Amino acid sequence: MSMSIASHPDRLLPADPGTRAIARDLLSRVENLPIVSPHGHVDARILADDTPFPDPTGLLISPDHYVTRLLHANGIELSDLGVGGSPTDPRESWRTFCRHWGLFDGTASGYWLRSEFVNVFGIDDALIGEQHADELYDRLQELINQPAFRPRELFKRFGLEVLATTDDPMDDLEAHARLAADDTFTGRVVPTFRPDAYVKFHGPGFAENARQLIDTAGDGVGGYEGYLRALQNRRAHFLAHGAVSTDHGTLTARALKLDAVEAARLYEKGLRGEATAAEAEAFEANMTYQFARMSVEDGLVMTLHPGVLRNHSPQTFTGYGPDTGHDIPFAMEYTRALQPLLADFGTAEKFHLVLFTIDETVFSREIAPLAGFYPSVFIGAPWWFIDEPDAMLRFRSAVTGTAGFSRSSGFIDDTRAFCSIPARHDASRRTEAAYLARLVAEHRITEERAAEIIVDVVDTAPRRAFKL
Amino acid sequence: MSMSIASHPDRLLPADPGTRAIARDLLSRVENLPIVSPHGHVDARILADDTPFPDPTGLLISPDHYVTRLLHANGIELSDLGVGGSPTDPRESWRTFCRHWGLFDGTASGYWLRSEFVNVFGIDDALIGEQHADELYDRLQELINQPAFRPRELFKRFGLEVLATTDDPMDDLEAHARLAADDTFTGRVVPTFRPDAYVKFHGPGFAENARQLIDTAGDGVGGYEGYLRALQNRRAHFLAHGAVSTDHGTLTARALKLDAVEAARLYEKGLRGEATAAEAEAFEANMTYQFARMSVEDGLVMTLHPGVLRNHSPQTFTGYGPDTGHDIPFAMEYTRALQPLLADFGTAEKFHLVLFTIDETVFSREIAPLAGFYPSVFIGAPWWFIDEPDAMLRFRSAVTGTAGFSRSSGFIDDTRAFCSIPARHDASRRTEAAYLARLVAEHRITEERAAEIIVDVVDTAPRRAFKL
Amino acid sequence: MSMSIASHPDRLLPADPGTRAIARDLLSRVENLPIVSPHGHVDARILADDTPFPDPTGLLISPDHYVTRLLHANGIELSDLGVGGSPTDPRESWRTFCRHWGLFDGTASGYWLRSEFVNVFGIDDALIGEQHADELYDRLQELINQPAFRPRELFKRFGLEVLATTDDPMDDLEAHARLAADDTFTGRVVPTFRPDAYVKFHGPGFAENARQLIDTAGDGVGGYEGYLRALQNRRAHFLAHGAVSTDHGTLTARALKLDAVEAARLYEKGLRGEATAAEAEAFEANMTYQFARMSVEDGLVMTLHPGVLRNHSPQTFTGYGPDTGHDIPFAMEYTRALQPLLADFGTAEKFHLVLFTIDETVFSREIAPLAGFYPSVFIGAPWWFIDEPDAMLRFRSAVTGTAGFSRSSGFIDDTRAFCSIPARHDASRRTEAAYLARLVAEHRITEERAAEIIVDVVDTAPRRAFKL
Repeated sequence: MSMSIASHPDRLLPADPGTRAIARDLLSRVENLPIVSPHGHVDARILADDTPFPDPTGLLISPDHYVTRLLHANGIELSDLGVGGSPTDPRESWRTFCRHWGLFDGTASGYWLRSEFVNVFGIDDALIGEQHADELYDRLQELINQPAFRPRELFKRFGLEVLATTDDPMDDLEAHARLAADDTFTGRVVPTFRPDAYVKFHGPGFAENARQLIDTAGDGVGGYEGYLRALQNRRAHFLAHGAVSTDHGTLTARALKLDAVEAARLYEKGLRGEATAAEAEAFEANMTYQFARMSVEDGLVMTLHPGVLRNHSPQTFTGYGPDTGHDIPFAMEYTRALQPLLADFGTAEKFHLVLFTIDETVFSREIAPLAGFYPSVFIGAPWWFIDEPDAMLRFRSAVTGTAGFSRSSGFIDDTRAFCSIPARHDASRRTEAAYLARLVAEHRITEERAAEIIVDVVDTAPRRAFKL
Repeated sequence: MSMSIASHPDRLLPADPGTRAIARDLLSRVENLPIVSPHGHVDARILADDTPFPDPTGLLISPDHYVTRLLHANGIELSDLGVGGSPTDPRESWRTFCRHWGLFDGTASGYWLRSEFVNVFGIDDALIGEQHADELYDRLQELINQPAFRPRELFKRFGLEVLATTDDPMDDLEAHARLAADDTFTGRVVPTFRPDAYVKFHGPGFAENARQLIDTAGDGVGGYEGYLRALQNRRAHFLAHGAVSTDHGTLTARALKLDAVEAARLYEKGLRGEATAAEAEAFEANMTYQFARMSVEDGLVMTLHPGVLRNHSPQTFTGYGPDTGHDIPFAMEYTRALQPLLADFGTAEKFHLVLFTIDETVFSREIAPLAGFYPSVFIGAPWWFIDEPDAMLRFRSAVTGTAGFSRSSGFIDDTRAFCSIPARHDASRRTEAAYLARLVAEHRITEERAAEIIVDVVDTAPRRAFKL
Repeated sequence: MSMSIASHPDRLLPADPGTRAIARDLLSRVENLPIVSPHGHVDARILADDTPFPDPTGLLISPDHYVTRLLHANGIELSDLGVGGSPTDPRESWRTFCRHWGLFDGTASGYWLRSEFVNVFGIDDALIGEQHADELYDRLQELINQPAFRPRELFKRFGLEVLATTDDPMDDLEAHARLAADDTFTGRVVPTFRPDAYVKFHGPGFAENARQLIDTAGDGVGGYEGYLRALQNRRAHFLAHGAVSTDHGTLTARALKLDAVEAARLYEKGLRGEATAAEAEAFEANMTYQFARMSVEDGLVMTLHPGVLRNHSPQTFTGYGPDTGHDIPFAMEYTRALQPLLADFGTAEKFHLVLFTIDETVFSREIAPLAGFYPSVFIGAPWWFIDEPDAMLRFRSAVTGTAGFSRSSGFIDDTRAFCSIPARHDASRRTEAAYLARLVAEHRITEERAAEIIVDVVDTAPRRAFKL
């Protein structure tokens, strides 16, 4: 069996031999630590039900917009990849994927996929690619039919200690409850409160969502007041099911404290479908402020992921739905946007606000300075498009001079792809080792301290930021 | 003869010995490949006429705003450098340049110039600088008087296979026609359609340009309709003369689909000199959309170069004209700006849109995500101020994790300086080797794949993006 | 005594052995050159009076917002650190600081502090940290009580040749006069004219400041005309006391030439407290233009530091005053903002405008292109949050391809912390050596030229930019 770069012990470590030796030693301190995953998109039901994965295409291709997007950019129709439930022959889609395997060289997706093949499924590297597409498909199918590759077994094998899901506020969290009650499952699977669909006037179904929310959890109170109360009640429901955080995919980072009368006025316009784009943004900003206030009250960690224009291609959205690879980032601003929120809650006891960005320019300019002063602000790890080794190194380089190592959130994998979790955390740990090794080699920190710091950033940081 | 850094076999390759060895091997795969130059500003006439170059100052200094700007920043008057046709003693200008040769250390211009001296003209490195200014001048003059240094001979020696020029839509392309008809010239020199002067209301001569355009090519139709028709007809003329692309130096990346009545209204205001700045920008944005539509129809590749405030110093512009070193970039936005265009044409068959930027922040944030989804979008190589080795490495680092290697345009030299073409492509090839070698050394791609990829990015990518 | 990383001869030098050897050699050319510090915040009185420093906390912790901010972010109350004159037990604050010493690993502040302990005070590295907090406190206290650690002795020991202070326009500069007249003090301490408090309508005390200014120096003329005249007169006073520059901490980089009537109208509204935010910004922009005009007339170098939202936390500002760690940068724009100023003064003889930024994105995009054309524009060294080794390397990498080495300001330490001056210059010199060594190792410049360039950027550049 040929040696794969996916199992090379020095993958992602710096080329300079002296620095690499340091990095190897640092990596050894964290390589086998349990995985703490405080933010992601795996469905709790696959663990509660221990559903076997479907075919290789349904497991690795169709649902992964990181993968389908790059194939689409190279001329493949999304319908040929089974995206958005398109009827497709999974084996044919698989062949298409394998034929274009070379596109993924150098990408984060390529790293994760190869690592899944080799390190999760034990595939010979020589099988990956066009020539052995069918053989690879058959081998994977055979494996995922085995009990050892069902979700709960993999959860154990991956060393997952905590896995956070992302959930609709109205979700009954029945799967989480089942897992918690199940003595045969020892992992911790916690829900995350994601209220975007109840906040964005112009998102699909806002009025209907809000009405259901109030009907279910508004304590009989109507209007904006009932709406706020219902959100608070649902947060309590999430807390009761183990939630540690809420997640907010806002358009911008803007927070705005509207007075209740004005907020109620906008809310009613939103319900009636009469709000302008500016009013919708103002209401969203108001809710960012309100969610911070609720976090101060109930202790849920607040995470903010602004700066992505969703569904850039209306044609693709119509044909295949959301999360199909055309959410495109744009420039973000945090300093002014968050000032009203931080003025009121920035030093509030136990308030945690994790700021994520895809716009790298804010790391050194805004987020590190904010997190270097406000005890509530944590620097979110590089996310989505910049969750890849070079960007992770740029991230550390951008924030450390100002904020050191104590203010970052720790790695979050943010994945829908369950089997990619180990590869993602592996890439992060190796990159942390690479960065710290350089600082040691440049005599900027001692090797002893680096050995402590890498454990802190890999293991302690996510527990600290997410109150785990 | 002393060894020059310009001919050092390891120039621009990474310092780490292991990585350098890999880079050397990768470089050897592409070092001698023909040059494909799909975007630049060399005048086709110098090849059609095979005009001997004038004196060294007229060849290397006066017309090159990369060079004159840095001299100007250090206190030299542009008039002393023969800029904008200023009468000057070329030898005296040359001495001035040589006296300040040290200013160019570390700059891209310095790399290109030294490479031209050493590798094109075979000059001893020891001659470069103040002490031997006259000797260097005389030696260069002697060489450029020789037949071996006339444009066509150099074209051959440089290994140029394709050279694109940039041309006014009203250009008859007579020089291109002559070259195509000339059996003694085997290179391919293709025109590029650059309509900026016919789009910008407040540029010099807009109304006169537009009227001439319609008179010549409007099929007898007037107004906005005739204007569009004339542009389409001139594009056809360019296509008939071998053009593969159009080039657009817009102020911003904004595209806007105006209805024909509103567009016509703006057009007429523009002609009358009555349009506001906002109206001029809206019309330009409308034309960006219209040019994309035309590209979908006629197949010409569309390249977009926004984000430069031209003629920043009005005093210098008045004295010396445009392209005299004070075009200054500013922050760009592509995600929202191009959404209307990509919504309609982003997945159109055979549509190619190459996005250039000088604002590096958009590489990871906007351009790589766009090119990683839309089959029409290509990532333009670093351009102008960022066409230099460190910025090229930052570019690859910024886009590869998201978009891999398949979505980039390949190198474009964008030069007015014919003799700098080999040095520019050399710098690019070395930088690609340096980047790929690091990925190999970090076990992120295999050496075999890197050897294929470097051929793809150097040779295949420009042919693919520019349909050559 | 254990070897400290703070005294390791290779600290901050590149890890690659070949590159490090080059860097060592380059560093040796500048390591012992005198320190030229053309911008900072040390109070001239401590040198005029040769005041002994107080206790270690009062010297190193309480006044240093770089230090207190990161402690604050980690849950320490500013009042427990003696910030803003809070009554505190200095030893207790010291223990708190030492308990959290690990927070500073990887930060610029950590580098400076360790270097002060080890290289200025000769402390054994093993004493730094929680376990020996009291011992370290006592040792430092003992040392700063000694004559060898009084400001003038340290000034000599640090090799300080020039030290610029930052001063209120109404300052009588008595301390500077005393130092200049004192034959026993051979250093050069020059004031810097910082008029922000006389320009910002909404800053504290604007109206009162402006009235005092006119009363004192307005030549009996009132209103806006007297205001301008008074500012000019105070600049003359500064010039007479050795000032070489003025410093402007504007909100944005915007310069605006208002006509005198409009400027006077805004000025009067500002005095009456009736100006809007937009009017305040317009007036500030007008004054940026006016100060440039005055610089052209009197020859004072103009430095611009825009882009920081001061006093982000109103609660902290109320409790502890300004400069307490919550000034947060935001995105900056220079190209359009400065166009009116550079159109009129960009090529004015002897005009020097040093552009600082904390927004790194403008280095390659705007500042290097501006400084690569306008003889008046100098590229300010990375400042504040980005005054740290990795950001310095990014800075050189961002600007050199476009502007070479001749257009930068040289290092400025911008510090309030007198004892950190050598460490800051040391970090800068090592980083310059690291950058240049890489260019040599990559055969981009010769070792001989690098040896000249490092002397230029360390020693000549600040003298050139600041007319010293």
